[in-house]
Amino acid sequence: MLNLFWANEGGLPANDRGLAYGDGLFETIRMEGRQGVLLSRHINRMVRDAARLGITISRGELTTVCAQAADRLSLVSDDAGWVLKLTLTRGAGGRGYRPDAASVPNLLVSAAPLPPEPDPAGVIVDFSRVPLTVNPLFAGIKSLNRLEQVMAARELDSGLFEVIMSNSAGHLVEGTRTNLLVKVRDGWVTPASATLAVSGILREWLLERLRERGEKVEERPLTTDDLLGPDCQGLFLLNSVLGVVPVRTLADHDLPVDTGLATIFHPFELLE
Amino acid sequence: MLNLFWANEGGLPANDRGLAYGDGLFETIRMEGRQGVLLSRHINRMVRDAARLGITISRGELTTVCAQAADRLSLVSDDAGWVLKLTLTRGAGGRGYRPDAASVPNLLVSAAPLPPEPDPAGVIVDFSRVPLTVNPLFAGIKSLNRLEQVMAARELDSGLFEVIMSNSAGHLVEGTRTNLLVKVRDGWVTPASATLAVSGILREWLLERLRERGEKVEERPLTTDDLLGPDCQGLFLLNSVLGVVPVRTLADHDLPVDTGLATIFHPFELLE
Repeated sequence: MLNLFWANEGGLPANDRGLAYGDGLFETIRMEGRQGVLLSRHINRMVRDAARLGITISRGELTTVCAQAADRLSLVSDDAGWVLKLTLTRGAGGRGYRPDAASVPNLLVSAAPLPPEPDPAGVIVDFSRVPLTVNPLFAGIKSLNRLEQVMAARELDSGLFEVIMSNSAGHLVEGTRTNLLVKVRDGWVTPASATLAVSGILREWLLERLRERGEKVEERPLTTDDLLGPDCQGLFLLNSVLGVVPVRTLADHDLPVDTGLATIFHPFELLE
Repeated sequence: MLNLFWANEGGLPANDRGLAYGDGLFETIRMEGRQGVLLSRHINRMVRDAARLGITISRGELTTVCAQAADRLSLVSDDAGWVLKLTLTRGAGGRGYRPDAASVPNLLVSAAPLPPEPDPAGVIVDFSRVPLTVNPLFAGIKSLNRLEQVMAARELDSGLFEVIMSNSAGHLVEGTRTNLLVKVRDGWVTPASATLAVSGILREWLLERLRERGEKVEERPLTTDDLLGPDCQGLFLLNSVLGVVPVRTLADHDLPVDTGLATIFHPFELLE
């Protein structure tokens, strides 16, 4: 059961807990006309992570809403790209922070244009000065508590595509809106899912593809030396709307650019 | 400059960044008729902490809104208690997490009934299993990123007034909606403001009063032993709407109850 709201008709009620406490989570899905890229993975993640927060929603409900959204919001043409955003909150009710077990979730559906395509020759990236804290209880969840990412994104300017955030141990965790994947001599390195603020759909899909091809993928903490030292053969930023984005400059250091990954895998062809 | 919204007339626009990312902060103010308890401190905190997030609002604007709210929302009678809530967000705009420097903040004003008065003979409290993470950049800010407090508040039931949350160092930091103050032989102990998730108005006011009286107040990390060991002469929970609340039972241990603090200081008489 859920209450459905269409952003082009208005916002959520004033007493919604998503606004009050960030008590919810969201998905942004790359759409091509009526079809979504890796759509079922987005739906699965939202159902699974909502359950971790004690918010109950079914795959069937979300699938139905996505089909309705495709009908209503894919306005331009059948092959035009756009972004579908689902914002799911615990709904209203409860006393202060304490939720009411009987609350019915609110789901806000909105559409946005595709962001500009990243430069396929590689983007410019820096380190963020905003520390990233990852509560193990919420690791990986794309919750509505994103103030750290907002403050880090304030460091971006027109020339800077992304900033990489570090945790209190000094490990490089992720960008504001991207996961990290490093090419090394004998395979790939990426921080483990349990250490991430947001565990991305494209990361999950891509790691499966690499392992299917027999490539070695190591999940471990990343240090500055992993990115700027001699072992790095390429740094990639992963985002399910933006794709696989090679980095050519990190903190004024030129990185080796390998555009192969972006051309081997075509997640945007995986329409559902 | 701000856009003002009254909760009894509807919610914030669908594209508000408060809902999207918890990109904002809030105050809950105990009102008696048209007057607010420690009102100017609430206003000062919101102005100061909004500036830390890069959201600009003036004392004058907030003061005017509070006066309007008192006129419109103190409906019952001049001496009836209620709670005024101010939710300030960065507004709309920007690209994803990255804000638009030209965004105009949204301010949502709402009224709620007073919560039940805590038992003046002392309340029952437990330790939370939800870890508390405090990003130093946001320490003390009553931001809209409160998922940790929501999940901890799910541990409350009708007999349990509050749960106390610990940080990754194992130090006891605060309750879901209260700051901690411990009476010891030669004074008082409380965690330092820079280590708090939310730095409370009542805590700030009360520490000033205690120091004015020449009492020793030590700000340092709290351990379980500080609360359950022989040095604890009383544990108090502080909340500007609920007041000074003595704890009589913590995790099934009886604590010494000293109701003196609640009777010496009368914050609810400090109407403005």
